[in-house]
Amino acid sequence: MNELALVDRLRKMRGVSGIGDDCAVFRPRTGEDLLLKTDQLIEGVHFPKSMRPETIGERALARALSDIAAGGGDPRCCLVALAVPRTKSERWILAFFRGLLSLGTKTGTVLVGGDLAHDDKVHSSVMVVGAVRRGKALTRAGARPGDQLYVSGRLGKPWDRKIVPRLALGRKLSGKATACIDLSDGLSLDLHRLCKESRVAAQVDDIPIVGGGNLERALHGGEDYELLFTLPPRSKPPAGTTLIGTIVAGTPGTVWLKGRKLPPRGYDHFA
Amino acid sequence: MNELALVDRLRKMRGVSGIGDDCAVFRPRTGEDLLLKTDQLIEGVHFPKSMRPETIGERALARALSDIAAGGGDPRCCLVALAVPRTKSERWILAFFRGLLSLGTKTGTVLVGGDLAHDDKVHSSVMVVGAVRRGKALTRAGARPGDQLYVSGRLGKPWDRKIVPRLALGRKLSGKATACIDLSDGLSLDLHRLCKESRVAAQVDDIPIVGGGNLERALHGGEDYELLFTLPPRSKPPAGTTLIGTIVAGTPGTVWLKGRKLPPRGYDHFA
Repeated sequence: MNELALVDRLRKMRGVSGIGDDCAVFRPRTGEDLLLKTDQLIEGVHFPKSMRPETIGERALARALSDIAAGGGDPRCCLVALAVPRTKSERWILAFFRGLLSLGTKTGTVLVGGDLAHDDKVHSSVMVVGAVRRGKALTRAGARPGDQLYVSGRLGKPWDRKIVPRLALGRKLSGKATACIDLSDGLSLDLHRLCKESRVAAQVDDIPIVGGGNLERALHGGEDYELLFTLPPRSKPPAGTTLIGTIVAGTPGTVWLKGRKLPPRGYDHFA
Repeated sequence: MNELALVDRLRKMRGVSGIGDDCAVFRPRTGEDLLLKTDQLIEGVHFPKSMRPETIGERALARALSDIAAGGGDPRCCLVALAVPRTKSERWILAFFRGLLSLGTKTGTVLVGGDLAHDDKVHSSVMVVGAVRRGKALTRAGARPGDQLYVSGRLGKPWDRKIVPRLALGRKLSGKATACIDLSDGLSLDLHRLCKESRVAAQVDDIPIVGGGNLERALHGGEDYELLFTLPPRSKPPAGTTLIGTIVAGTPGTVWLKGRKLPPRGYDHFA
């Protein structure tokens, strides 16, 4: 199959719009800022060769959507750069996009463009555009001493479960949370990042651990895709979230767990 | 070097803004549409292992900017997903970004985000956001029988020269050209695509060939990165462009060269 024929097939799928031109055209609404995110998913690095193409496609989008959730945004559209070995069939590629589009249509993320190439291994980069009320994007940078530290869900989940990006929670937090980050590389590293950007420290008291999980994995395991966020003192937290600690003054980036320093040793791709 | 330290270095480079959060925040201006494009550059597929990192970085951005030019837009910002082998030094990665940012600062394209990972080979996906006056984006779809067909520059250039995206020309064509495409995969294939999207055919009479080039390469060679566009009859063409033929009624996608059918056999990644 050639690229023209493949793109023709893709254009007919549900949740796809406007692909097949040099650029996708996107009309922003007035009063909105856009959130931009790109995220890679690489065979042998982020997933095993044996993973089903539908699952790979869904995860590729879900990971980027988790960052849009952390920004408090509504996902609008995505572009997908996909490289596959020549041995992969048209059927495999279409299954990848079927998986991606199943999550896309659920979350309002339209596939508007992309790029296809051949490579030795499967390598996808998904770029998502989200929208948020002007000036209301959540960042890692606004936490203040005295703010309360919360996390959604439970931590230490197995990496290969289905990822459910916390979009509804992110939208609720927009304009309320002082800082927010998604837990993709482990609580210890991601909380360190949030504190460093906010130029504060944090004291963690307790962590909600998933059934069958353990503290080590909850602290340093990656791929939980929950939201870690801070609220001003005396704010009411949204349902399904747990108070785990407090923001304090201190050397930017320092994290204390029950009085002991917690080193940032989650998943660092360049360590 | 770890990812945190590398991102810190990148944040201090000229032409970089706002990286180091879950998402980049982009504020669109009112009255503008956005052009979105993603493009891959893979070691061993799009460039040889021996290519300098500065050149790879510059090409990675230049190819995507050529598509923004074809849409008639002004580039605004970009995100870069980069995977490199563990053997590549911090120096190599910074050189890649230096090359990319040298073109970025020249063209007003700010690096606002990205994603770093390790892989066996260098693999970059660059996503560019451009802006164009509302409703004035150029597409492949508006050519009509009677329109005149033009190309910028000369075709059949060696693939490894410096790519100069035709941004100034694209801006001039916005609101004037009826259709436009950038020549990345060869005239025969890209003109076929333009005609197919516009549901027309084309007659090509003559082609400007670069010194030292030949007709075969000018017709079917990729990577010329010139603009191919159509103007209504009796329009004045911009300087530096050549009239090469006429749009005619016919089976959508058919291209005639001096009375003989020209098959679309440029560079197809999935052929």
